[in-house]
Amino acid sequence: MIIKNGLIYYRGEIVKRDIEIEGNKIVRIGKNIEGESYNAEGKLILPGLVNTHTHLAMTLLRGYADDLPLNEWLENYIWPAESKLKGEDVYYGSLLGIVEMIKSGTTCFNDMYFFMDKTADAVVESGIRGVLSHGCIELSDPKKGEREIKESLRIMKICEKNDRTEFMFGPHAPYTCSKEFLMKIKDLADKYKKYIHIHVSETENEVKGIEKQYKMKPMEYLEDFLNENVLIAHAVHLTEKEIKILKEKNVKVSHNPVSNLKLSSGIAPVPELLKNDILVSLGTDGTASNNSLNIFEDLKIMALIHKLKDPKNLNANECLKIATENGGKALNLKIGKIEEGYFADLIFIDLRSASLNPEHNLISNIVYSMDTESIKDVMVDGKFVMQNRKIITLDEEKIIEKTEEIAKDLVNR
Amino acid sequence: MIIKNGLIYYRGEIVKRDIEIEGNKIVRIGKNIEGESYNAEGKLILPGLVNTHTHLAMTLLRGYADDLPLNEWLENYIWPAESKLKGEDVYYGSLLGIVEMIKSGTTCFNDMYFFMDKTADAVVESGIRGVLSHGCIELSDPKKGEREIKESLRIMKICEKNDRTEFMFGPHAPYTCSKEFLMKIKDLADKYKKYIHIHVSETENEVKGIEKQYKMKPMEYLEDFLNENVLIAHAVHLTEKEIKILKEKNVKVSHNPVSNLKLSSGIAPVPELLKNDILVSLGTDGTASNNSLNIFEDLKIMALIHKLKDPKNLNANECLKIATENGGKALNLKIGKIEEGYFADLIFIDLRSASLNPEHNLISNIVYSMDTESIKDVMVDGKFVMQNRKIITLDEEKIIEKTEEIAKDLVNR
Repeated sequence: MIIKNGLIYYRGEIVKRDIEIEGNKIVRIGKNIEGESYNAEGKLILPGLVNTHTHLAMTLLRGYADDLPLNEWLENYIWPAESKLKGEDVYYGSLLGIVEMIKSGTTCFNDMYFFMDKTADAVVESGIRGVLSHGCIELSDPKKGEREIKESLRIMKICEKNDRTEFMFGPHAPYTCSKEFLMKIKDLADKYKKYIHIHVSETENEVKGIEKQYKMKPMEYLEDFLNENVLIAHAVHLTEKEIKILKEKNVKVSHNPVSNLKLSSGIAPVPELLKNDILVSLGTDGTASNNSLNIFEDLKIMALIHKLKDPKNLNANECLKIATENGGKALNLKIGKIEEGYFADLIFIDLRSASLNPEHNLISNIVYSMDTESIKDVMVDGKFVMQNRKIITLDEEKIIEKTEEIAKDLVNR
Repeated sequence: MIIKNGLIYYRGEIVKRDIEIEGNKIVRIGKNIEGESYNAEGKLILPGLVNTHTHLAMTLLRGYADDLPLNEWLENYIWPAESKLKGEDVYYGSLLGIVEMIKSGTTCFNDMYFFMDKTADAVVESGIRGVLSHGCIELSDPKKGEREIKESLRIMKICEKNDRTEFMFGPHAPYTCSKEFLMKIKDLADKYKKYIHIHVSETENEVKGIEKQYKMKPMEYLEDFLNENVLIAHAVHLTEKEIKILKEKNVKVSHNPVSNLKLSSGIAPVPELLKNDILVSLGTDGTASNNSLNIFEDLKIMALIHKLKDPKNLNANECLKIATENGGKALNLKIGKIEEGYFADLIFIDLRSASLNPEHNLISNIVYSMDTESIKDVMVDGKFVMQNRKIITLDEEKIIEKTEEIAKDLVNR
């Protein structure tokens, strides 16, 4: 298929080019390519956005506990509810999240949660792309650790069955997993050629806890665990020395600005990370701490909060790159770019919207003012999953009905 | 007309009630009211949001100059472009902004700009409600001051011709208007029983400038000018003493969180203002510094940035009140509430959206996760201006086309 007559976001610029797709890949970008075509006249085509940190099925807890300190939020609301989760809940919660992501232009997400086989089912069914980790909480208990590894390897096998489900190991955090366990995970990742997804330095309390126990900052404590296969979510509280470690080890970061504001965690030093050439990508975190999966919101908020210090920080083009190309690199997948050899994960934006006009600078308009309603069509892996704002792979109304029922039941179980 | 079977936001809660409308006013709220009806089953009805500070026709400069320091932005881009503005530009720029506002649930805005007779035309034609100030820039030049007052009074007369156009005096700021001029405006406001809209304490530089010249902080310098008829936009940099002055004088504030972040102005001390019972409302500012008029974005960002200090700051319900009821109070109009005697300015939200489910807490969902596409119908002054997302009073495509043409011409004039 040839996508003709559209504007495309290509190597940091908006240009008029046709895109040739064969199967699930982009095979050519050029002018006036002939063939069976989709007419993208009046549309702007971006690579689908990449959400590099979320807990998808937490959609079920959206709005359940807001405006609370992190500890109270976790201990009195989130953990008790999560302890009663069942596989079916996670399946429907994942579907609800996928509907929200597709409608707001996300084509791939990186998820850490439980019952991930159910999330894999939702990914396969919906047509979206997902990178799935079983969240391992070992708590220095070797037996628990073994069970977490067993479950991780089970999910790994399930993910290998479909081209759109990728697997990462997901040790939850250095305060919920022992160093020994983390090193075991590192060995397994090397053995199976997989990557690792972990939370580090989200809150000041976490940093203080590690300092108290080990007399070191978290990245110093983790130094022999960290390498280019590790993606760290949050990374809010970092010393210069820790930034140096992240750089030397080629660690990747998922920045979660909305969640970090909402839970008073702080503002990650993204301009400093970028200056040090550390790969920064963008994540929404779960909907219990955002409460949205619309990553275009996070894109704007990321741009804004780093401007608080300097208005030249994170210009619109840099921000868009963080949410696309850098997302692909963070997940080690050929996504987030319109380039030959990349997966055909694309979003089609109708430019006839008040929020996108006038067109002095389309990239600015996308980052700072676009209403997500302008995203009309979404393609993943060469196939449309949404056309004219209707999701064609899923029954949206049924999913909303079912999740409402499950969510009510969950918090009253 | 009776609006039946809907949920409504009423006195801080979401309840099921019918609303009776007569002409342009809400006359009754109750259960099972009989009569000719609009079926709001499955919908949530909010008072239309109130944007208490913008420069509407700056839509023409959206994306024209981003990611720059305030001075460079103003002096090299905004002021040169504005100096070439014509009345027709402002008319079309206002229409574009009104389209964007209606589609994102704003039913009344407070605007300070030039050629305000043209914005008045756009308000009348579109069906929205607007409060209009001619922005007076006197620069201590009495002749210039006289011309600004003459133009203000001309706009006042024009606004009096229509029920949906209200007038405020608009002395731009204490650094562009002398104290003498401000006091003259105060007398005129008293004489004509009108209100005043002014920028104060937006940036540190502005505060330093006033301190240097008058050895006082801005609110101290303005103490005899300030009273309950004054609405201050920004109020970012305030001492405790200045907060006390605002409280004593019953001054109203328009908080502009997005613009203040984007231009590195800072974060206004909103929790402290609220603790002191000072009326805080919400504004987007112009689209050259936001760059959106979707006030639901500002609503979420306001909630988030004040949580950076404390997650309990500005809960969802408080935020929604700021953007509705407090907006009405800031503009001295019977809007922003669903109550008997208030104008029928209402927005109708379709609850069947992934972004609004599950319904643990609908107010949280509105503030933190709602996609504005869920706003299906918008009513102003008892008349629908949008139905099923189609604006029925204006030709959206024609406005987009025309503003594109004008905007290109404006920056190349």
